[in-house]
Amino acid sequence: MSWDGWLAEQREARERAGLQRALRARSVDEDVIDLASNDYLGLSTHPEVRRASADAALAWGAGSGASRLVTGTTTAHGELEAELAGFTGRRSALVMSSGYHANLSAVTALADRDALIVSDAHVHASLIDAARLSRATIEVVPHNEVDAVRAVLDEAGGRRALVLTESVFSVLGDAAPLPELAEICAERGALLLVDEAHGLGVVGDGGRGLVAGLGEAPQVVMTATLSKSLGAMGGAVLGSDALIDHLVNRARPFIFDTALAPAPVAGALAALRLLRDRPELPQRIHRRASELADRFSVSRSAGAVLSVPMPSPQVALAAQAAALDAGVRVGCFRPPSVPDGVSRLRITTQAGMADDAWEHAVEALTRVVEQHGGLP
Amino acid sequence: MSWDGWLAEQREARERAGLQRALRARSVDEDVIDLASNDYLGLSTHPEVRRASADAALAWGAGSGASRLVTGTTTAHGELEAELAGFTGRRSALVMSSGYHANLSAVTALADRDALIVSDAHVHASLIDAARLSRATIEVVPHNEVDAVRAVLDEAGGRRALVLTESVFSVLGDAAPLPELAEICAERGALLLVDEAHGLGVVGDGGRGLVAGLGEAPQVVMTATLSKSLGAMGGAVLGSDALIDHLVNRARPFIFDTALAPAPVAGALAALRLLRDRPELPQRIHRRASELADRFSVSRSAGAVLSVPMPSPQVALAAQAAALDAGVRVGCFRPPSVPDGVSRLRITTQAGMADDAWEHAVEALTRVVEQHGGLP
Ligand SMILES: Cc1ncc(COP(=O)(O)O)c(C=O)c1O
Ligand SMILES: Cc1ncc(COP(=O)(O)O)c(C=O)c1O
Repeated sequence: MSWDGWLAEQREARERAGLQRALRARSVDEDVIDLASNDYLGLSTHPEVRRASADAALAWGAGSGASRLVTGTTTAHGELEAELAGFTGRRSALVMSSGYHANLSAVTALADRDALIVSDAHVHASLIDAARLSRATIEVVPHNEVDAVRAVLDEAGGRRALVLTESVFSVLGDAAPLPELAEICAERGALLLVDEAHGLGVVGDGGRGLVAGLGEAPQVVMTATLSKSLGAMGGAVLGSDALIDHLVNRARPFIFDTALAPAPVAGALAALRLLRDRPELPQRIHRRASELADRFSVSRSAGAVLSVPMPSPQVALAAQAAALDAGVRVGCFRPPSVPDGVSRLRITTQAGMADDAWEHAVEALTRVVEQHGGLP
Repeated sequence: MSWDGWLAEQREARERAGLQRALRARSVDEDVIDLASNDYLGLSTHPEVRRASADAALAWGAGSGASRLVTGTTTAHGELEAELAGFTGRRSALVMSSGYHANLSAVTALADRDALIVSDAHVHASLIDAARLSRATIEVVPHNEVDAVRAVLDEAGGRRALVLTESVFSVLGDAAPLPELAEICAERGALLLVDEAHGLGVVGDGGRGLVAGLGEAPQVVMTATLSKSLGAMGGAVLGSDALIDHLVNRARPFIFDTALAPAPVAGALAALRLLRDRPELPQRIHRRASELADRFSVSRSAGAVLSVPMPSPQVALAAQAAALDAGVRVGCFRPPSVPDGVSRLRITTQAGMADDAWEHAVEALTRVVEQHGGLP
């Protein structure tokens, strides 16, 4: 088949299924309450974070010039790595240009053809791609089923095994049973990789994430993004010194990629310091997320993401459009972005927002969800 | 084997082979002439680029908040895409958070199990990873051998075929025979993907890259980075409207990744405008690169990268250290970062640098290379 024919056929199939998407740009002065962004703590636009990010662009320039091993590592990268590791109680951290890169790097540098990857069924696309790219044997286990993980590891024989999960899952907002998983892995000599993309800044003591609650846990590899609660962009892998040394030497998506630019490095560091000084920020997320869950009669979220099931992809889209008309932006998850095929509104709790804006948004959303059959 | 044992064994093997690497941070006020960075035009630190990047962080915040399809697309992304496409003569562009993401996205969204990928033997790690991740059938052809590409395509039968190359290769600095490749592909209905990471801003009319010289060429997919001559970070895919629409809907490393932050978007746009207004910048690269090649008796580079073979990885490292002692930073490529296993100094030509600094650096490097047996 020709490429043109194939592209056209693919598009027609998406249109028939109601799954065609298009980009829509927001302007700098738009008058919308944003409950779609993952900037849960509002730190991206905090004056100190803006200022730190801007100052870094002025001081260092707009880019870092090359990969980390060539000349892209600045003292700013080192500072951020030290403070990220300190905050989350890990030994060492390595900053990358996206959370996607962090997952690709960690998994592909650790798991080779001889390794076994045991992956929770709901993990993020970046972990799925990472597992595929690694060429390891992959076993997918049902979501959050600890017994299934144990059973697969017991069958692993002498193979190095890497278990993949998230601390707080990105779509449904539920948490993984980390203490149990960590114990099972430690007993069997497996590594546990926990993606804290939606955990850092949100859950655990003062927003330290759920891995911090496991103690030193040298058998745990943590990945994180700087693009959500830390309000910037980039990612990180955290763990033992030996792990980080291994990644510096072997992780292709780290080695062959230009270093994260100074502006997001400095922005994330400023946000991390604000978070460290303000443990009430993550607490406000939980209060608001619980109110919201009760309001919509959906189960409470472990983190900031509230997921409201809708009758169909079309209705979910219509509800999202109605919310935007009412001045509130929410996310809309349709296949293939949902692990179970159920379309939903994805509403993110915003700790940085003033009470009146928050309440206004919740009222508006309640009406929209009611009108679209999203409430029982 | 245990993970700890495996990590230790891997490290020992690297040390035995002289291939252990470690990060070294540069400070904001270091007194070094940098001939390692890929910021070939010096635009990363141009006052207008710094200012534009800083202003974007102040105006928009340190991050874009979410993926492009959710709420991460700003009008700044749209502006950059329009001007990138305009400058390079493509229909449409899509900006991503790294050049690595651009290659992963383009290849995996296009090539599936039914497709055939024909890859030049020297393509960048990001294209190799992209091809692996796609699960297409992969045929690697000898570097720049047009006949080999033709032969593989002639055997492809009805399969959709995607040919991967770079315009200017990242390690050796040579150029691909694009007109011939484009013709072969067009005749056979194959797509030609050209990575312009080291071509944009450097080669072609006014630094438009080599794809621009092919004319409209709808059968060509171009990828680029914003992290090299454009002095910021991020990547882009450029091509037909149908291609970009397909990527927006299907490219997982685009869809499931937070949008590039506003600061690098604005930095890259400011750099692009400077490049457009100053066609003498790329010309200065070629003048300096030719001088340098003659000085070191190595073959001239098609772009900004000069590659100087060294007798061994150890000597290459020692030469790099001696250059740094003399105040000049150069890159050092050792296995596995070199396609042919030959270790080399990698010297990048810097158009932004004042003549005296440039000449000083060239003198210093000449001595170092002589002392390390790198000259015939
Ligand atoms: C669970 C999870 N992991 C990783 C990522 C990738 O992070 P980034 O957007 O920083 O690339 C995301 C979202 O984007 C995510 O939700
Ligand atoms: C040829 C080539 N393609 C892609 C990339 C990746 O681009 P980025 O560093 O923006 O991720 C690089 C270098 O980093 C490169 O040299």
